[in-house]
Amino acid sequence: MDIVIIGSGNAAAVLGRKFIAAGHDIIQIYSRNAAAATELAYEWNSESTNYKSTINKNADVYLIAVTDDALEDVTDQLKLPGKVIAHTAASVPKEILKNVSEHYGVFYPLQSLRKDMTTLPDVPIFFDGNDAKTKNMLEQLAHSISAGQVVEAGDDARLKLHVAAVVISNFVNHLYSLAEDYCRKEGLNFKQLLPLIEETAGRLKNTSPKQAQTGPAIRHDSETIQKHLELLKAHPQLKNIYVLLTESIQQAT
Amino acid sequence: MDIVIIGSGNAAAVLGRKFIAAGHDIIQIYSRNAAAATELAYEWNSESTNYKSTINKNADVYLIAVTDDALEDVTDQLKLPGKVIAHTAASVPKEILKNVSEHYGVFYPLQSLRKDMTTLPDVPIFFDGNDAKTKNMLEQLAHSISAGQVVEAGDDARLKLHVAAVVISNFVNHLYSLAEDYCRKEGLNFKQLLPLIEETAGRLKNTSPKQAQTGPAIRHDSETIQKHLELLKAHPQLKNIYVLLTESIQQAT
Repeated sequence: MDIVIIGSGNAAAVLGRKFIAAGHDIIQIYSRNAAAATELAYEWNSESTNYKSTINKNADVYLIAVTDDALEDVTDQLKLPGKVIAHTAASVPKEILKNVSEHYGVFYPLQSLRKDMTTLPDVPIFFDGNDAKTKNMLEQLAHSISAGQVVEAGDDARLKLHVAAVVISNFVNHLYSLAEDYCRKEGLNFKQLLPLIEETAGRLKNTSPKQAQTGPAIRHDSETIQKHLELLKAHPQLKNIYVLLTESIQQAT
Repeated sequence: MDIVIIGSGNAAAVLGRKFIAAGHDIIQIYSRNAAAATELAYEWNSESTNYKSTINKNADVYLIAVTDDALEDVTDQLKLPGKVIAHTAASVPKEILKNVSEHYGVFYPLQSLRKDMTTLPDVPIFFDGNDAKTKNMLEQLAHSISAGQVVEAGDDARLKLHVAAVVISNFVNHLYSLAEDYCRKEGLNFKQLLPLIEETAGRLKNTSPKQAQTGPAIRHDSETIQKHLELLKAHPQLKNIYVLLTESIQQAT
């Protein structure tokens, strides 16, 4: 397919690379950030523009990969009649695009995408469209870059998925971050925890997390918990979370 | 080395397999659970016993891999003079072994070990000993099964490490578990989150979690947070944690 990408951030860069790897042409990148757009255009042997009025009208699909906040600005005055257009935001209804084209939808990558990734990760795609043409084209595009994980998901389902993604990615990363902080302050080497972090995540392929729960909280090992709370007096933010998550684990059993 | 393993649970089984793979001999397994001990003895072409009095006195190292609670029971009346003896518990001082032998220490694997693992994970080992002979032997044993991650760590350092391990493994797993629960109740497929879970854990090799923090909380995107809290009304336990971790992320910035 011939694709125009609108946006030049993390999602734009990684999805663009996946499109190129799948044999599509990115015929143009539009972004208000001219430097970032130029760089991606160079990488993809494409063109870039930072004028909305010069957006190429000959693509099959227009993908708007910008932050939620920027969506309204970017779509304002944008008219692409007859074209299939989609945004990549989990929590924004597809109707935000209804004045841009009569074929509008969503192409939501459930993955943490960063421009500086050296390898392209698996990216499950949740697509939606207001009509069959849009759905078909976005589904086809999704299958071309995602090995198996392509699911139709309306606005409600995407919003629900996003909550789960926040929990298993943003919140989990915050726990990693607090642990890193704690290790630095206590003279420990956070990197020594990486094998355990990987095992805890990796075993989910074969094991339900409920079955895999171990540790002092689920054992109701109050002696160890008390020792830990004593140590955490110097780390009030982590201590607060230790108490709440210990209670929550004990409540869940 | 000739090794006697005391215990027949998850840590005993996985460490034992690592010892065998490294060319050591496990000359005996002692456990109160005769069936489990027999099974491991069969796997390792070893012997098993469930009588403390018949523990083989000819090994180089005795490794006590039992739960914290069972340690006192197991070591009661146990006498192995002149032998190197170590337990595998993070949070228990090495002195619990001082009446068993004059050479006592700790051999703490910082990893989640399960008997049913099909591949043996990387296992950083934190060792300690009351004298040079014990330390040397345990360090040598550790290097034989652990690629690079072998660190001397006294009782205090191990206790501190254990707190970090609880945070990045037990607490993280609890978040996975709550998300799985939420997905089931909302008709979503938890497995579709696995690529994001893996990426969030895997990127720590190259990226500090502090740099990698994304999501509505750190963006102070209160519109999205409100939508999520609305959805979480039906999931009070998860909602509680959503609120606390969102606050904690915003506090950390």
